[in-house]
Amino acid sequence: MANRLGEFYARITKDLDITMDFWLKHSHDENNGGFFNCLSKDGKVYDRLKHVWLQARQVWTYCRLYNEVERFRRPDILQTAIKGMNFLQKHAKDPQTWKCHLVLTEDGKAVKTQRSIFSECFYLMALSETGRASGDNTYMAEALQMMDKIVFWVREDDTDLGQPAMEGAVSTSSLAVPMMLMCLIDQLETVDPTLEVKYRDLTGWCLTEVKKHIQRDGSVILENVSPEGEELPGSMGRLMLPGHSIEAGWFLLQHAINKSKDDLKKMAIDKFILNPFQYGWDKTHGGLLYFLDVDNWSPTQLEWDMKLWWAHNEALIAFLMVYKETEDTKMIDIFAKIFDYSYSHFVDEKNGEWYGYLNRNGEISMDFKGGPWKGCFHVPRYLMMCEKMLKELAK
Amino acid sequence: MANRLGEFYARITKDLDITMDFWLKHSHDENNGGFFNCLSKDGKVYDRLKHVWLQARQVWTYCRLYNEVERFRRPDILQTAIKGMNFLQKHAKDPQTWKCHLVLTEDGKAVKTQRSIFSECFYLMALSETGRASGDNTYMAEALQMMDKIVFWVREDDTDLGQPAMEGAVSTSSLAVPMMLMCLIDQLETVDPTLEVKYRDLTGWCLTEVKKHIQRDGSVILENVSPEGEELPGSMGRLMLPGHSIEAGWFLLQHAINKSKDDLKKMAIDKFILNPFQYGWDKTHGGLLYFLDVDNWSPTQLEWDMKLWWAHNEALIAFLMVYKETEDTKMIDIFAKIFDYSYSHFVDEKNGEWYGYLNRNGEISMDFKGGPWKGCFHVPRYLMMCEKMLKELAK
Repeated sequence: MANRLGEFYARITKDLDITMDFWLKHSHDENNGGFFNCLSKDGKVYDRLKHVWLQARQVWTYCRLYNEVERFRRPDILQTAIKGMNFLQKHAKDPQTWKCHLVLTEDGKAVKTQRSIFSECFYLMALSETGRASGDNTYMAEALQMMDKIVFWVREDDTDLGQPAMEGAVSTSSLAVPMMLMCLIDQLETVDPTLEVKYRDLTGWCLTEVKKHIQRDGSVILENVSPEGEELPGSMGRLMLPGHSIEAGWFLLQHAINKSKDDLKKMAIDKFILNPFQYGWDKTHGGLLYFLDVDNWSPTQLEWDMKLWWAHNEALIAFLMVYKETEDTKMIDIFAKIFDYSYSHFVDEKNGEWYGYLNRNGEISMDFKGGPWKGCFHVPRYLMMCEKMLKELAK
Repeated sequence: MANRLGEFYARITKDLDITMDFWLKHSHDENNGGFFNCLSKDGKVYDRLKHVWLQARQVWTYCRLYNEVERFRRPDILQTAIKGMNFLQKHAKDPQTWKCHLVLTEDGKAVKTQRSIFSECFYLMALSETGRASGDNTYMAEALQMMDKIVFWVREDDTDLGQPAMEGAVSTSSLAVPMMLMCLIDQLETVDPTLEVKYRDLTGWCLTEVKKHIQRDGSVILENVSPEGEELPGSMGRLMLPGHSIEAGWFLLQHAINKSKDDLKKMAIDKFILNPFQYGWDKTHGGLLYFLDVDNWSPTQLEWDMKLWWAHNEALIAFLMVYKETEDTKMIDIFAKIFDYSYSHFVDEKNGEWYGYLNRNGEISMDFKGGPWKGCFHVPRYLMMCEKMLKELAK
């Protein structure tokens, strides 16, 4: 399959162009700043609400492209991102508590707040990448302050998040939290490499937390474990999200490559990428399943057997990264398998962007391009990362 | 199809027996009281958490069967229900605020609370039916006090529910709330018909609220409208749940029959039952779709095209009730269509109870019989109501 590298590069480059055309053309709110993120397959706005995760991720995507991909280093892209960032600074964050909302009206009034840290994390990513693109240091300063807040909530005291303490609630370590923090550390160190010292202890904590999710003699990644790294009872304790595990895998692998940690490299590949791909790939219909139960009970999430675009984006990044690192051709074969499934099911080469949600058989179940949980992020991040890796492989 | 009435009766009677066998055999927690409601297809407990809606509904179902179906008037059924009710009284309700939790551990510790009124509503239904079955007046007294609380939260002040006020949140009238209150009034008046006077004003309010959801010149039922009965913007405003509309339809029809309100009868049948069935029935694969968008945008709920058991239970009750009332044979033809779909897709005649969740094609997507949102309620309620109606039709 290694001889398909040129083909992959050509399709990915084209896909990045038409995908970004889609967002640049259809999503900008010229009046208020920010983006319409609920867009139909051909870019019509079917809901004017603004979802904060997606607003912040779109700012991040625009700035990352501006910073790293020559043909997107355009003043209009930067200006739109800054307008989006300023919209979020004005409306998404509570200036007293620094909690960020989840959903806003088009003119910025708060509709919904979530009692977790994720709006805040994506807000931070947007801030720091905007700082890097604009050269304005105030963005990065605010990002560093937000990082302190998030770390305080995660490691010291989460009272501010507003989750009521329940006597029967089991203490849980969720894979998403240390993964997210690793991603933030990588983000901040990308802008300012001297931060490595500041975040060394936190990085160690994240790695310890992430490793707790390796269970059953290393054969599976469980989404939720106890703070001591033991299995939890019930469906929640048995839950696996193969696409999410694989995403954690490339976060770990990237970290291990950057810091030359060979043991971690092997663990990331074997435990977080290869195993979850093996049990997560649907042998009957192709594609990665969304939720699984480690003991083969029926998952309780209604969407468990759907195929979601982002899981495939993450798997493509992961397997290309593994191939680039190991030069093991079995890895590019798996990349090709995911690539062929994706480009025959998810990709809309006419209008741009991917469909997000297929049923188990691979039919499009919902045909919008942007929705409450799907915006300008996973597809372009995959495309820019794989374009770059393929360019390096071609050298 | 009217000549199939005997066949329907025979299958429904048998189905009620094997369905109740399933719960009586597999779900009882003899140690703590209450029920294991997460049960696999053959009755194995795959999660020991107790979901309060389902605990309360199972108490209600046991007592309603005890009260109204001769062959279930068994002391063991009543005793199990009372044990379940006492478990809920001890653990589900906050004695200070009367808010009820959503999820408990098997020994009754609170895991999760919801900022709405529904746990409290099902708790009330369980209380009053237990009072009716046991002859102990304290249950009904507590139910009446809970009713005052719920009505206060809905009509006066919902601060106690804990929903934060958000500047951008649109005031919404949700169909579920007046429907639920109508169901509670019917419940309380079934136990004590003299309550009609007390709840006359509230009944009027419910009917006014429910009618606001008839939109687009009477052709559709929208799930969410403004308090003034206007359409709301976005996906939320365009949302239709055909099965839920049909359930509202038989609540209204039952009320109209009991109170001899002919206009309301016609409205219930035409607007809430026939129209939603027409647009909700999947012309390609059969079965009722779960969510729809009135303007044919893609719904944003991932499970929109699944076929859920309860929608089919509600539709079977509704169309048999319409047939019994109108003697229009087209109505029994529709009943037969839903019946044939259900008994060839949902029903497990070997182990008892229905599968709950099919994909669009009609394949079983999740094979458990009880889960976080599926318990001993919709199937037996449909079976006992239809058994009774068919018996009366045979006279």
